[in-house]
Amino acid sequence: MSAQATGAFATRSKALEKIEGLSIVGGKAVGPCPKVDQFFAEDPCSGRAIGVEYHAATDADIDSAASGAWSAFASFGQSSGEERAVLLERIAQNITDLGPSLLEIAGRETGLSVTRLRAERERTTSTMLLFAHVVRQGDWVHATIDRGAPARRPAPKPDLRSMLRPLGPVAVFGASNFPLAYSTGGGDTASALAAACPVVVKGHPLHPGTGELVARAICDAVAQCSMDPGVFAYLHSGGRRERAIGARLVRHQSIRAVGFTGSVGGGMALDRMASERDDPIPVFAEMGSTNPVFICPSSMEKNAERIAERVAGSMTNAVGQMCTCPGLVFVCESDASDRFAKSLMNHLSDRMPETMLGRRVSDAFGKRLNETTRVEHVRLLGGSVPAAGSKSALRKAEGAPALFMTDLKTFIHNPTLQVETFGPSAIVVNCRGEQELRDGAAAILGSLTASIWGDEYDGRLIKNLASALEQRVGRLVFNGAPTGVEVCTSMVHGGPYPASNQPHTTAVGPRALERWRRVVCFQNAPKDLLPPELQDENPLMIRRLVDGRSTEGALDAA
Amino acid sequence: MSAQATGAFATRSKALEKIEGLSIVGGKAVGPCPKVDQFFAEDPCSGRAIGVEYHAATDADIDSAASGAWSAFASFGQSSGEERAVLLERIAQNITDLGPSLLEIAGRETGLSVTRLRAERERTTSTMLLFAHVVRQGDWVHATIDRGAPARRPAPKPDLRSMLRPLGPVAVFGASNFPLAYSTGGGDTASALAAACPVVVKGHPLHPGTGELVARAICDAVAQCSMDPGVFAYLHSGGRRERAIGARLVRHQSIRAVGFTGSVGGGMALDRMASERDDPIPVFAEMGSTNPVFICPSSMEKNAERIAERVAGSMTNAVGQMCTCPGLVFVCESDASDRFAKSLMNHLSDRMPETMLGRRVSDAFGKRLNETTRVEHVRLLGGSVPAAGSKSALRKAEGAPALFMTDLKTFIHNPTLQVETFGPSAIVVNCRGEQELRDGAAAILGSLTASIWGDEYDGRLIKNLASALEQRVGRLVFNGAPTGVEVCTSMVHGGPYPASNQPHTTAVGPRALERWRRVVCFQNAPKDLLPPELQDENPLMIRRLVDGRSTEGALDAA
Repeated sequence: MSAQATGAFATRSKALEKIEGLSIVGGKAVGPCPKVDQFFAEDPCSGRAIGVEYHAATDADIDSAASGAWSAFASFGQSSGEERAVLLERIAQNITDLGPSLLEIAGRETGLSVTRLRAERERTTSTMLLFAHVVRQGDWVHATIDRGAPARRPAPKPDLRSMLRPLGPVAVFGASNFPLAYSTGGGDTASALAAACPVVVKGHPLHPGTGELVARAICDAVAQCSMDPGVFAYLHSGGRRERAIGARLVRHQSIRAVGFTGSVGGGMALDRMASERDDPIPVFAEMGSTNPVFICPSSMEKNAERIAERVAGSMTNAVGQMCTCPGLVFVCESDASDRFAKSLMNHLSDRMPETMLGRRVSDAFGKRLNETTRVEHVRLLGGSVPAAGSKSALRKAEGAPALFMTDLKTFIHNPTLQVETFGPSAIVVNCRGEQELRDGAAAILGSLTASIWGDEYDGRLIKNLASALEQRVGRLVFNGAPTGVEVCTSMVHGGPYPASNQPHTTAVGPRALERWRRVVCFQNAPKDLLPPELQDENPLMIRRLVDGRSTEGALDAA
Repeated sequence: MSAQATGAFATRSKALEKIEGLSIVGGKAVGPCPKVDQFFAEDPCSGRAIGVEYHAATDADIDSAASGAWSAFASFGQSSGEERAVLLERIAQNITDLGPSLLEIAGRETGLSVTRLRAERERTTSTMLLFAHVVRQGDWVHATIDRGAPARRPAPKPDLRSMLRPLGPVAVFGASNFPLAYSTGGGDTASALAAACPVVVKGHPLHPGTGELVARAICDAVAQCSMDPGVFAYLHSGGRRERAIGARLVRHQSIRAVGFTGSVGGGMALDRMASERDDPIPVFAEMGSTNPVFICPSSMEKNAERIAERVAGSMTNAVGQMCTCPGLVFVCESDASDRFAKSLMNHLSDRMPETMLGRRVSDAFGKRLNETTRVEHVRLLGGSVPAAGSKSALRKAEGAPALFMTDLKTFIHNPTLQVETFGPSAIVVNCRGEQELRDGAAAILGSLTASIWGDEYDGRLIKNLASALEQRVGRLVFNGAPTGVEVCTSMVHGGPYPASNQPHTTAVGPRALERWRRVVCFQNAPKDLLPPELQDENPLMIRRLVDGRSTEGALDAA
């Protein structure tokens, strides 16, 4: 049963007919409730509503999703790594099985190309499979055992065993820019499920149809694995109730942690809400990042054009709508840096305006370009800035690249230049000599990445830049572009504020699972109350630290 | 040179003559500055000033300590685990070498017994030695390597290597109740130094002489190891400037993290200050904890008296001035629970008032007892409550045990009963049946510990309690007392708010080092820029995760 299309601009397709516009709670579509707000997805290429009416989740839906997640936690929290590995593999398969319908709907809702979305789907499922591998293998829980010594004097030494234990239900707020990889079935959901935490997703209003299809694939997997349907729920969210839905979810007593990918304002608002609860819960928010690039003089002298090409490619990747797009480029002023700037400008000016994710994104981009333009001593090198206050023409969501230039002093004295501009835009910061380049590195705020271009003749400078930047970022890239976040164990996708609110964590890679767990110590616990990971026999054959030594064996009876 | 004793109540001793009353910055005593505030330590047994005048740190002292720490970080942050192990061992030796003077001064300032202080000194030095072992061994940094595949299509796979890297200078705010083990040279300082982070200690005004002696022992060790004197600084803090000193330190741009042990109010104030910086920094605050005890019916039936003895001992340990003293005892109302309450009362009523750490502690204890008394349906079972608003008699700092009783409904509806009472006091919460016992477990706020007394006939109930309590505490104790925090790898001394503001961390054990580090990823880094832990050859022979597999070997050239 598909909801009726309404409105003059509504468009239809066979794929759309699969969408009901309803939240999924307890494994079933809920509603529609005649009294709640409805909203539409929009095609950012045309500004037209896409022909499905979405029903924003009611308060009852939210409560039921959160309480259901809490009930499910009783069993899911005790599930084995093997059981969850099978669930994740099943989800990956079900998402793949959605086939072209998923790509079609995601493309219509976000304006992203099918090629990009196919790669993103692959990234989503390979993340699921990596996490499945990690929890099946089992070492990740940091099991640690210190055996007791009841005869010790003056006080007996207790038997102490600790490991990461799951927090409970997690609320996930996905990102606009990755409708698959950082949204309904993205990294936060995958890592929380892998960590044995039920998930309630607050759907993103810029891609509700995509969200619903993925949610159904996940719910199907939960059912196929005969797990409690409360393990996963999806709440449509949009229109006037959008904020209220998020707030109610974060404040619900059954929700024990929050994952968020999006703006600094949004992330910090959730962080505040969560910390004002009677029982504060952790929020893991991945937010804004300028991803500064530092180009050392020798490297610039030899490779100005090549670096410009790489920076331009990274800036305009997905119309600059990546968390890791470079927004600041620090150079030492010279003939070579002039060549670099010209070359960068040429690469960018080839580009026509392109469709952005939605009007709220393109409007925000235009607003930021205007804010940048208004700073004294900031010069627009190339590209165009929409007239202040203008909204996207013809209701389309479009953005064209813009390149600015300024000096270090201006950069340092204008905090607005350190705010992320989400879209294809960068500021070249001209430094007078190497010391200013180092001062620039010491002045940047937290960021997901920083990049250094340098060669053997830039030796000491690279070292100085690297140690300053290490303090400020999650990932330090050498002679490369910051976009392209590899999903692997050593990846760090995080960083000090404003890149994230929890600089000790990462949102990508298996370490992301640790966000949804907390180390708990069991003192003199009866054998039958210990999780398998901590039992004498080491039935899962995982690597543990026993009396300070790493071992995969059982406890010897000594 | 010792400062002159002043004031009518001043007392002297040979040990006191070793104390100058001056902060230590850059390895040297600074001041005295005639314009700053002075303050005295007080003997809590008499309320008299102890005969040394302390000079509260000036703004210049604070700035110089913080900047010196930042300068020192350039070298100390790059030091080897071996170098820091030697430093920690040297500090332990120097603290031991302070001999009876340290115990005498600590005893006079805190009223704690020499036996207790000797054990605490042993705990302090053994923590140093454990951390020395951990950083010398080197595995703790979670080194992870994913080798690149330049030929991969469509995009080359980068070489990615990550590990925990140090945050920079740490400000440490010690606790009143452990003048050695959680103060100047306590767990926060030891773990920060072990993690390669310079430390600036804000001295505790209840034991400034102890602080100064320990600080000097640490500074001597830094000098003996030929390290930058900025690695450690100590700021005297007390009198009217106490808060201002802490605030300036936390807001200083060179300070990159904060460790705190103390009250919820104090910890959260620092947390807010740190998060309001332009570049927010993490605060790790260990705060208030009620350490609830749950006694199952079968165990109560058989062991009421024995459990009462253990609970009484744990409650009154160090006059109830331990973070892990039990403040709530949940029982199923029965004849056995009556026997338990009577027995507990008998143990407590044997006790005379004892000296507490200082008047601010005993006054706060009296205030909390009054707040508890005022709650309707809370009954004082035994002990005495000082008249409301009364201050410690004769300027002495004293506290006597108090035992209250209430029912579950009253407990649940009066949040004040979940606030820690720092001192020898507990509330017995009478539950009507096992379900109410479980409801009690589900109602408690975050705590460092919870304890369950149960035997094989309490089987399912224990399991239910354990899974509810696991959600709320850092350490779950079975059939034992919560006091007595073992320093070992599997210890967790932390928990959800209000036990700490960072529930994912522990303040005790080697995992405490991870608070002062953050995982940083190096992408395609030139060999000579990689820390030894991430180099191909694995020169430190540490355990690493290479391409997802745990190994202690070098990277093979394959």
